[in-house]
Amino acid sequence: MPSIGTRVVERALELARHSDSTAHYTRTLFTPAHRAAARQLAEWMREAGLAVRTDAVGNVIGRYEAKAAGAPTLLMGSHFDSVRNGGKFDGVLGILLPIACVAELHRRGERLAVAIEIAAFSDEEGARFQTSFFSSRALVGRFDPQLLERRDAEGVSLADAMREAGLEPTRAAEAAIDTSRLAAYVEVHIEQGPVLLREGLALGVVTTIAGGTRHLLRVRGEAGHAGTVPMPMRRDALAAAAEMVLAVERRCRAGGSLVGTVGVLRVKDGTGNVIPGEVEFTVDIRAGEDAVRQAAERDVFAECEAIARARDAKLERTKTHEVSAVPCAAWLQEAIAASVQRAGVAARRLPSGAGHDAMILANVTDVGMLFVRCGAGGVSHNPAETVTAEDCELAAGALLDFLRHFEPVTAAASLRR
Amino acid sequence: MPSIGTRVVERALELARHSDSTAHYTRTLFTPAHRAAARQLAEWMREAGLAVRTDAVGNVIGRYEAKAAGAPTLLMGSHFDSVRNGGKFDGVLGILLPIACVAELHRRGERLAVAIEIAAFSDEEGARFQTSFFSSRALVGRFDPQLLERRDAEGVSLADAMREAGLEPTRAAEAAIDTSRLAAYVEVHIEQGPVLLREGLALGVVTTIAGGTRHLLRVRGEAGHAGTVPMPMRRDALAAAAEMVLAVERRCRAGGSLVGTVGVLRVKDGTGNVIPGEVEFTVDIRAGEDAVRQAAERDVFAECEAIARARDAKLERTKTHEVSAVPCAAWLQEAIAASVQRAGVAARRLPSGAGHDAMILANVTDVGMLFVRCGAGGVSHNPAETVTAEDCELAAGALLDFLRHFEPVTAAASLRR
Repeated sequence: MPSIGTRVVERALELARHSDSTAHYTRTLFTPAHRAAARQLAEWMREAGLAVRTDAVGNVIGRYEAKAAGAPTLLMGSHFDSVRNGGKFDGVLGILLPIACVAELHRRGERLAVAIEIAAFSDEEGARFQTSFFSSRALVGRFDPQLLERRDAEGVSLADAMREAGLEPTRAAEAAIDTSRLAAYVEVHIEQGPVLLREGLALGVVTTIAGGTRHLLRVRGEAGHAGTVPMPMRRDALAAAAEMVLAVERRCRAGGSLVGTVGVLRVKDGTGNVIPGEVEFTVDIRAGEDAVRQAAERDVFAECEAIARARDAKLERTKTHEVSAVPCAAWLQEAIAASVQRAGVAARRLPSGAGHDAMILANVTDVGMLFVRCGAGGVSHNPAETVTAEDCELAAGALLDFLRHFEPVTAAASLRR
Repeated sequence: MPSIGTRVVERALELARHSDSTAHYTRTLFTPAHRAAARQLAEWMREAGLAVRTDAVGNVIGRYEAKAAGAPTLLMGSHFDSVRNGGKFDGVLGILLPIACVAELHRRGERLAVAIEIAAFSDEEGARFQTSFFSSRALVGRFDPQLLERRDAEGVSLADAMREAGLEPTRAAEAAIDTSRLAAYVEVHIEQGPVLLREGLALGVVTTIAGGTRHLLRVRGEAGHAGTVPMPMRRDALAAAAEMVLAVERRCRAGGSLVGTVGVLRVKDGTGNVIPGEVEFTVDIRAGEDAVRQAAERDVFAECEAIARARDAKLERTKTHEVSAVPCAAWLQEAIAASVQRAGVAARRLPSGAGHDAMILANVTDVGMLFVRCGAGGVSHNPAETVTAEDCELAAGALLDFLRHFEPVTAAASLRR
């Protein structure tokens, strides 16, 4: 019999065969591949001894009862949709590892002080309908009926896609669970970054899920002939933008969890022999603490304004996205760290720069996250994304240890800690 | 009777009606609009007292004989094709102003010590077949038969376009003239920049036509998730490129005629939440003196290499274009400056950052250029490009004065000056 780690990796690869595309791995909400993956997950859950239901928005939820009736519920889980041409472990790992742990408990006839539920969320990336966290929002009672009107690239509405998947869109809000029974939410996820890899550590304890903003900046200078306008007479929009790009980088190097990225930069009507008249670019700033991020934003945008003024350029700025940081509960960090150490791994604490379903669950219960090292240089959202069976084995060991040591407290009690 | 300046402006606007597009002014080689413009120019030349011929590549050439037989020829001219959505004076001014001056001589019965020829070049921008300086090259005996195979966006070859215009492609080389009869080539052109406008001067004396190079640079760093890769672990290709853009600007601000421009910059697969892994951009560097430009290039590219090394990025560089600087003959600069001053305008000397047919003629004779102030902030290659009738009147006065004072020397003699 293979190790738990080997089985988890094999199942992730097997599940990735349920893909919208034959050319690469892509699985989006309510496609035939997505429904097949849901059926496969339900089957594995049942084999592991979980009682399975599919909720009103397509989440597959398995339940493993506690030793005693009336015990609170520890919810675990992650998502089984993907970005286009995504990685095979992103999300899926946080479903398969808990299933494997429960299978192990079930095999040994162990029942715990808490009931365990594993939620396989149908839609977190939201690639098909641009509906990030669609299904964890529904689970915590924050379903937005307006989303049902959203259409995919082929013009199919989310409501119609739900019907095709055998779900009734008007009943989507019924996916909401009784959150008062929750003791906590714990999510296992591939790191999606290079920190653990570079430090030679298989596991990490997440301290906080970073908040972030995205802004679109537009710099207007003056276009002109590259040969005929002397340098002192220029109002070069790209040179101004280049200074701003470096201002973002410099300020966000201040340390800690703060990061800043200009991922898009476009020169309008760019031609080799024309001085750029207009440039637009994005500024993505994230940090584990909102105050840290907001201070960086203030400084960066003040510097961008000063750069524009000095070059007689105009600067426009639009905020296109904002989420607040979500801290992981200190008591869950402690418990996860203790289990990681008992698994023989130094308990490296690190923030999560990417968003996760845990951000949504944090609205109703305490959340904790366990990161598993990401191979291949730390790339994610990419077919090269990978984890090793050895790391999954360590993660399964730590998670089992965590479950066995988990103290059953209700959400209400945990809030008093 | 209107002033010469008014007539020149009116004719430029009238000629612009012969356009490939009804939406904007575009006139490219051998289209119906181009042929109609050639006929119109020939008619205006004949009215001005010039003997007109169309040569083997579609240049319209008018000749006004000298006082005495056997006198050398002063060639003037410019081009009557345009860039797409171009300005109505670019090129055309250097044909219409000389025609207007000869008309004035003809009206007064004046003959000069030199014969005057005016060449309306059929193709300088080369927008249709990507054939810059096609027809001035043919005139000086540098016709390249391989160009006949070039095809336009619709797949029509240059050879077929010539045939449709009533020209025989196999005879294109016959456009070459006997250059030993040339005393000089003088080109009037709109400045296409803001220097004269900002200094409040109608006219300028060109010292040199800048040489230039264009390079394509590609920076390869490492793509990554904008949230999960800490700043010190990044190899951001855009941040590296931004430093390089500023290095180009800083070094090319050294003064004189040196200019440097990054006109194109593209982030490969740019997305707001992804650290750029690959960026490419152009670097256009020009100067009136080749040694000045080459020194700037060496410094700029050495700095780009250092930036790439410091950021652990890879840098590739490809030269896509190079032309050497062409100085205007000192004796022609003096003669043009004297005429400009006699027209009541301070003789501002300035380099031409843009290329002109004069660069090609410089291979066979001494060249001089007179710039006319560009309105609307100095924009060119743009529908907003404009000159005033008053400035054209001053230019016509200076050009007539120049012609009347012109000393007939042969090209061979001028080389000894």
